[in-house]
Amino acid sequence: MQTKILLPESEMPTHWYNIMADMPNKPAPYLGPDGNPVPPEAMLGIFPEALVMQEMSAERWIPIPEPVREVLRLWRPSPLYRAHRLEAALKTPAKIYYKNEAVSPAGSHKPNTAVAQAFYNKQAGIKRLTTETGAGQWGCSLALAGQMFGLEVRVYMVKVSYEQKPYRRSLMQTWGAEVFASPTDMTEAGRQILKLHPDSQGSLGIAISEAVEEAAGRKDTNYALGSVLNHVLLHQTIIGEEARKQLNLVDDYPDMVFASCGGGSNFGGIAFPFFADKAAGSNVRLVAVEPSSCPTLTKGVYTYDFGDAVGHTPLMKMYTLGHDFMPPGIHAGGLRYHGDSALVSQLYNEGLIEAMSVPQLETFEAGVLFARTEGILPAPESNHAIAAVVREAKACAASGEPKTLLFNLSGHGHFDMTSYDRYFSGELENFDYPEEAIKESLQHLPKVG
Amino acid sequence: MQTKILLPESEMPTHWYNIMADMPNKPAPYLGPDGNPVPPEAMLGIFPEALVMQEMSAERWIPIPEPVREVLRLWRPSPLYRAHRLEAALKTPAKIYYKNEAVSPAGSHKPNTAVAQAFYNKQAGIKRLTTETGAGQWGCSLALAGQMFGLEVRVYMVKVSYEQKPYRRSLMQTWGAEVFASPTDMTEAGRQILKLHPDSQGSLGIAISEAVEEAAGRKDTNYALGSVLNHVLLHQTIIGEEARKQLNLVDDYPDMVFASCGGGSNFGGIAFPFFADKAAGSNVRLVAVEPSSCPTLTKGVYTYDFGDAVGHTPLMKMYTLGHDFMPPGIHAGGLRYHGDSALVSQLYNEGLIEAMSVPQLETFEAGVLFARTEGILPAPESNHAIAAVVREAKACAASGEPKTLLFNLSGHGHFDMTSYDRYFSGELENFDYPEEAIKESLQHLPKVG
Repeated sequence: MQTKILLPESEMPTHWYNIMADMPNKPAPYLGPDGNPVPPEAMLGIFPEALVMQEMSAERWIPIPEPVREVLRLWRPSPLYRAHRLEAALKTPAKIYYKNEAVSPAGSHKPNTAVAQAFYNKQAGIKRLTTETGAGQWGCSLALAGQMFGLEVRVYMVKVSYEQKPYRRSLMQTWGAEVFASPTDMTEAGRQILKLHPDSQGSLGIAISEAVEEAAGRKDTNYALGSVLNHVLLHQTIIGEEARKQLNLVDDYPDMVFASCGGGSNFGGIAFPFFADKAAGSNVRLVAVEPSSCPTLTKGVYTYDFGDAVGHTPLMKMYTLGHDFMPPGIHAGGLRYHGDSALVSQLYNEGLIEAMSVPQLETFEAGVLFARTEGILPAPESNHAIAAVVREAKACAASGEPKTLLFNLSGHGHFDMTSYDRYFSGELENFDYPEEAIKESLQHLPKVG
Repeated sequence: MQTKILLPESEMPTHWYNIMADMPNKPAPYLGPDGNPVPPEAMLGIFPEALVMQEMSAERWIPIPEPVREVLRLWRPSPLYRAHRLEAALKTPAKIYYKNEAVSPAGSHKPNTAVAQAFYNKQAGIKRLTTETGAGQWGCSLALAGQMFGLEVRVYMVKVSYEQKPYRRSLMQTWGAEVFASPTDMTEAGRQILKLHPDSQGSLGIAISEAVEEAAGRKDTNYALGSVLNHVLLHQTIIGEEARKQLNLVDDYPDMVFASCGGGSNFGGIAFPFFADKAAGSNVRLVAVEPSSCPTLTKGVYTYDFGDAVGHTPLMKMYTLGHDFMPPGIHAGGLRYHGDSALVSQLYNEGLIEAMSVPQLETFEAGVLFARTEGILPAPESNHAIAAVVREAKACAASGEPKTLLFNLSGHGHFDMTSYDRYFSGELENFDYPEEAIKESLQHLPKVG
């Protein structure tokens, strides 16, 4: 029984798939504080032109530059697995496939875009990149990518994570990045916070402000973001393109595609290339899976809101729980985002994709089952997709339907063992749906125009 | 430029290579305390018959059972890499290839034998396995393997590691193993130690005694060892067999093969299948790399000694620094072994393989260079092989010789970030060659017969 479906390097995709070419309605523009669309030029202060063009492009296929492909070959094409042992444990007639993005050196799908972003910045003559990181997945990916193209990388790491997750910090340093506990006294934003709260433990919002401020103020420095934006999702489509080819090699095609969804880059990465088939008559169902304690798509409202917590970014039309919504402290840090990618949001609003939410304990239960059958220890974020697939596979067992299910294993959990520890010791909980907090934060939505 | 040389599952080796068939002199027998060879029956109390047979076998090719191959397919064949970026950084004309064993779920080569051992024990009707673990690599591998075949696994983890490496412990628990801090009060050996030293931090020697005592005392329970023994090295030869096939695919063959060497299973795994070519005229050089602070092959004596620290095992003829030699606290825990596999020792004694030692700081320097060029963060053990390859590649740069170098990347360092942290903060040291300690421990060698 074949377990891994491998693609040779010669079959690695040469183009990214741009879903904007196939969307029935083009995505709503980003708006400035005045309610007018943000002109592309306004983004050039912190992003290179090539990425700004990709952010707006309507071209269906965008070539992957050869120097990017050369670095991606360090781990791509990633293997597609048939989960024989998981299927057997679930006694399901469903066929379960998963794409394994944990094989990247940083351990997740994030380097797919980090490498592309580093390349375009290098090409534009940029010498340094800044970014923020919470748990450290994105910071690690950008550190790795910067090292590959000889760019300096400075990471503002949320102070509480800096202190609690020293291993992710060491990993960034091993790849040559400078890592600072945010808030720092190196930026105006950081100094302001420290003046008011000398003991501040930091937040993603503050770290973003610091990283953007530094990039905006230095000509040789740009900023890099790890999810949400169109160009980030674009760079991740190589995942779904490869998976499509690999399934083709074994003459299969998914009935349903699942991916965990925080900012949307993991979901967009595996799901968008299958969206292209819908026009050609495919009935494939694309399912975004989110935590029930941060249920952006399933419980949020579709409106203009800020991308960050403090209201510094342009306004994006998206599903949001309110930009100042503070999700419960679940262990899938990458899914604790109040909003969602504009592309994913619009597709969901038009009924072209589906969404569901799962509670924390169910995700860990599914992750442990996965580790005990397939071996690989999944990241807490990936456990959301696994939980959804387990539900569906059980439904197939009940109905007898032999569906073909595909999901993206977005990363491994080697740096998340504390979370598993807490799960086993019974310390994790299923947070109640934070209805009151969401009601409250939705009252702070910005007025557009 | 091709980076990864992949082998399809259909090309995964069907047999292990048994070097005993090709050794000019058969290995010296294990001896009991009376100086007489240990009969196979004596091993049946803690090992299944199939493994005892393999320990003694002179058959060149031993079939890999299909249920073992089925589990190995979760990560095997492992990819062979051409290290283009490392070569470029070293400006060397040498071609550097590495086999990536870090892709196993447990993160190292150890599951190759853990899976086989679990299978044969299951087949023999055994319900439980016991073992010891220091840093946790072996314990994790056996936990994973036990889970795959429905065997209970109990791991005696050296207490100081149990407390300092909680993530490896959680990983074992995620794979369903019971993990206890050794010394425990569950065995006679443990209780004796605790009576004398209530605050004992444990040692590998004590943990072995506990695991063996439990296995010897229960009919449903066997013991599993992660290195040193012939059958363990046998199960690792799949690494070198695959590498040989993969190099063949790109029409290449190594001038030199490097692997770090503690108990010998990593070295034997990649090197032995190339030894078979020597008879057919190959001049390939096989190089075992050890830490200069625990220089078993390069500074030890070739004689009969105990395999464990306390003198409970049979006597094995091997290079040893004395069974009670306590190596300095280097960060490559897997290489802190006073002795070496009897097979590796005999080959070295007969001049058929080579050995070299490298100091700790050079290994970390090489590991960081590797991470910054090839992406993957190596285990401190693997850094020894990398350091040796870097030396040789630099020599090639000086001489202009375009040698083909192959090494085994035995594992990743995701659970060893503390060591990298200490390296970056300047806290690591190059221990002096422990001449006095070795002199002392060599005086305690057992008298044979």
